[in-house]
Amino acid sequence: MSAFTPVVLWMTGLSGAGKSTIAFALEKKLQSENVLCEVLDGDVLRNGINKGLGFTEADRYENIRRTAEIAKLLCSNNFIVICSLITPTNDLRDIAKSILGDKFKLVHIATSLEICKKRDVKGLYGKALKGEIPNFTGISAPFDAPEKAHFIIDTQNQSENQSVEALYAFLRDLH
Amino acid sequence: MSAFTPVVLWMTGLSGAGKSTIAFALEKKLQSENVLCEVLDGDVLRNGINKGLGFTEADRYENIRRTAEIAKLLCSNNFIVICSLITPTNDLRDIAKSILGDKFKLVHIATSLEICKKRDVKGLYGKALKGEIPNFTGISAPFDAPEKAHFIIDTQNQSENQSVEALYAFLRDLH
Repeated sequence: MSAFTPVVLWMTGLSGAGKSTIAFALEKKLQSENVLCEVLDGDVLRNGINKGLGFTEADRYENIRRTAEIAKLLCSNNFIVICSLITPTNDLRDIAKSILGDKFKLVHIATSLEICKKRDVKGLYGKALKGEIPNFTGISAPFDAPEKAHFIIDTQNQSENQSVEALYAFLRDLH
Repeated sequence: MSAFTPVVLWMTGLSGAGKSTIAFALEKKLQSENVLCEVLDGDVLRNGINKGLGFTEADRYENIRRTAEIAKLLCSNNFIVICSLITPTNDLRDIAKSILGDKFKLVHIATSLEICKKRDVKGLYGKALKGEIPNFTGISAPFDAPEKAHFIIDTQNQSENQSVEALYAFLRDLH
């Protein structure tokens, strides 16, 4: 048996905050210890199970709902699931929580909008600022800082590796 | 390591053919041997990830597409996945195959319409014959016998247990 309790780490944060980077690094670490773990990455899912969904409020809702259902299925098979999706509002986070119950652990990747804009790894903020991407979180759509995160990751004052270690420790200490 | 190759057993057959019964019995047997296995059952999924989808052609397509995507995800995590969905036409089976590639193993639960109607475990055939259920496979919607099943289960001349054992042996001998 794994020493870890199967839960769903729901990583919320702005585009470019580092959600997927941390998610995949943690998955790699857990899998190297033979812990069942799967990342459900928003961008990846939008090319598969969530193909055809956009970024309107209704589509974001459906995107979160389906992802939470898949996470639930995996979690019931003893997986640690790491969901990496912007999930910009408390209402959207509540959908996931309503499906996952106590398994839902909200992790806020708390990189500021200023830093995400400055990094702009995928060039999306530049385009959004020019009005080329509608409903872009932080620019033309809201991001509410979560009120009830179970864990907050401060990527500004710690390295990627430190962030992964911190999240690993959080997971290990869950009961 | 498990002796089994992770594949997706895609169980096609009429309502009442015995798909889910055999699927869950095989899952139980495999799990008792510590083989990772998960049933994706059409009826169950329609209350979760596939909620809101009906039985029109477009909705059946989307139902199959999403289910195949989830099966793919599980299979890539070394699960044996057993999909139990009517999947009434070759076109619909081809959607699943196009997503799953070589992992897709089509299993035909070949119980005849006559026997399914006679059993009518859920009382659905009676309702469908009275016109109370639109698009009901075998009554008001087509079921094409599959042209290219990898395995056929004859529930008429063998017991449930024999069917499960036959499918288990098929799975064990896959390479």
